Amino acid sequence: MKKLINDPKDVVVEAVAGFGAAHSDLVTVSLDPVFIARADAPVAGKVGIVSGGGSGHEPLHGGVVGFGMLDAAVPGPVFTSPTPDPILAATKAVDGGAGVLHIVKNYTGDVLNFETAADLALAEGIEVRSVIVDDDVAVKDSLYTAGRRGVAGTVLVEKLAGARAEAGGGLDEVADLATKVNERTRTMGVALTPCVVPHAGEPSFTLADDEIEIGIGIHGEPGRERIPLEPADRIVDRLLAPILEDLPYAPGERALVLVNGMGGTPQVELFIVFRRVAEALAERGIEVARSLVGNYTTSLEMQGVSITLLKLDDELIELWDAPVQTAALRWGR
Amino acid sequence: MKKLINDPKDVVVEAVAGFGAAHSDLVTVSLDPVFIARADAPVAGKVGIVSGGGSGHEPLHGGVVGFGMLDAAVPGPVFTSPTPDPILAATKAVDGGAGVLHIVKNYTGDVLNFETAADLALAEGIEVRSVIVDDDVAVKDSLYTAGRRGVAGTVLVEKLAGARAEAGGGLDEVADLATKVNERTRTMGVALTPCVVPHAGEPSFTLADDEIEIGIGIHGEPGRERIPLEPADRIVDRLLAPILEDLPYAPGERALVLVNGMGGTPQVELFIVFRRVAEALAERGIEVARSLVGNYTTSLEMQGVSITLLKLDDELIELWDAPVQTAALRWGR
Repeated sequence: MKKLINDPKDVVVEAVAGFGAAHSDLVTVSLDPVFIARADAPVAGKVGIVSGGGSGHEPLHGGVVGFGMLDAAVPGPVFTSPTPDPILAATKAVDGGAGVLHIVKNYTGDVLNFETAADLALAEGIEVRSVIVDDDVAVKDSLYTAGRRGVAGTVLVEKLAGARAEAGGGLDEVADLATKVNERTRTMGVALTPCVVPHAGEPSFTLADDEIEIGIGIHGEPGRERIPLEPADRIVDRLLAPILEDLPYAPGERALVLVNGMGGTPQVELFIVFRRVAEALAERGIEVARSLVGNYTTSLEMQGVSITLLKLDDELIELWDAPVQTAALRWGR
Repeated sequence: MKKLINDPKDVVVEAVAGFGAAHSDLVTVSLDPVFIARADAPVAGKVGIVSGGGSGHEPLHGGVVGFGMLDAAVPGPVFTSPTPDPILAATKAVDGGAGVLHIVKNYTGDVLNFETAADLALAEGIEVRSVIVDDDVAVKDSLYTAGRRGVAGTVLVEKLAGARAEAGGGLDEVADLATKVNERTRTMGVALTPCVVPHAGEPSFTLADDEIEIGIGIHGEPGRERIPLEPADRIVDRLLAPILEDLPYAPGERALVLVNGMGGTPQVELFIVFRRVAEALAERGIEVARSLVGNYTTSLEMQGVSITLLKLDDELIELWDAPVQTAALRWGR
């Protein structure tokens, strides 16, 4: 294992401290318990939005804390859910009196710990609603999941719910919007290489030199099948097929396309993938109305990519275009 | 070699096509010859700024084309200089009548080809000035270089010269500012893993399982020494020492710190590195007045990092804070 770290047990705290120092205009960080909050939190009268989960997926979630998106992010140990304590602390820190939305990727540990934190928050008088993200069409149940996994589509849920909250939406309205986005979002990924969790020190799985895993999870969980490496365009077609089968588009419908790098993928490859996605959707008469290409939900140094389609409507386009000011997404302000 | 590509010979054209499709609000792309230009180029009366070089370092340079930064980027084949033709075409495309600045990383092929293009542009009546970037303190001469190599500091030169041009600076003024930034910028990098150039199909060098290369070049050129892997904080100190020796800081002086990922480095590691840089500079009384942490000048999927310090003054801070609107850097507008 070769990593630019000190002691494996200090990875998260040191990274969060560094993130806080680099982005002190946007966020404040707490190191005990560990969470990252908007510099101006709590925002009075605004619904607070908290997300979190195991570390190793950066910039998710700390990198999307700021105006127009998350109010707080709670990073657990690498690939391990945060406990209820820091989730509760973050929830209290961003409660501006209008309630708090928890956006939770669908993994058993995350769901349980966010639920406990929500109960504790309620006991302290903070109204909490939770929305579970489960956008991964690859598998029905998985290593750490009952039901589908929550993967890169999470960043879209967080952007759009954040915009609705910033525009003054109430707690139910923001939660319903998050649910709507999740219901319209589908993702499928592929891995070329595994990644190494620092405290494990070994790859979580292995792939042969010419082998790729179709439908990989963001913790390296098994997908649908292992096949020999193919040209990028054919891999894109393999990922798009189950996405479009699961949520069909009529000609003329509009999609937001997210091509998400898993962490170790060169940027040229992400754009080669995007090129084919755009072409394949054009062939079906689907309009790529908005797009996002880059590393947003990573798996440490894994090489690979996921493709996400979100079925847009006028409301979602307006929310997407609304200003956002975070470390990883920033426009319009 | 496992890569998300089709035919290795199509990597650059397909990636540029995909980039253009994803960022059509910011840029237009030409595929023959290959260059990327601001969507609103040429901007009448503004000095045009063109940079370029071998592909594989994305987001440099195409990702920083836009308002407040580059007017055009000319990507050559992977790790290979573009020929004079596309450089000339880009220069003509962005000439708004106030002359064009070429920002050139110091590699023999780039310097020669940009020089030829500048001569051809002059013959067509376009005034061109060229500034060579050579910020890498690692080695005096290198595999493809007479003198120091141009590496991650290039993004700082491009941002600040771009701001000066956007503010109405004349050609000499913009070129002198670029020269000033280069003179105040120092970089040193480290590699944990090599990278594979698509048309070569093999790693350009090899490192043992516990070995790192201090002073690596962005094409995998040899650095100063190979040593066993050490804790991140110690590696940071090794990179900072020659930077600060080459351009000493008095206590109270201000630095812009760029922690640049080489492409395959997990984001947590970049922030662990930044944390130590900030700490080490604080120990010396140097103020981190601005910072930038992320993948800006990459070497495909290489794992590693470079540290850049730019000695700031009031003029440079004002130019840094000026609005910029590109795919990779975006703020203030």
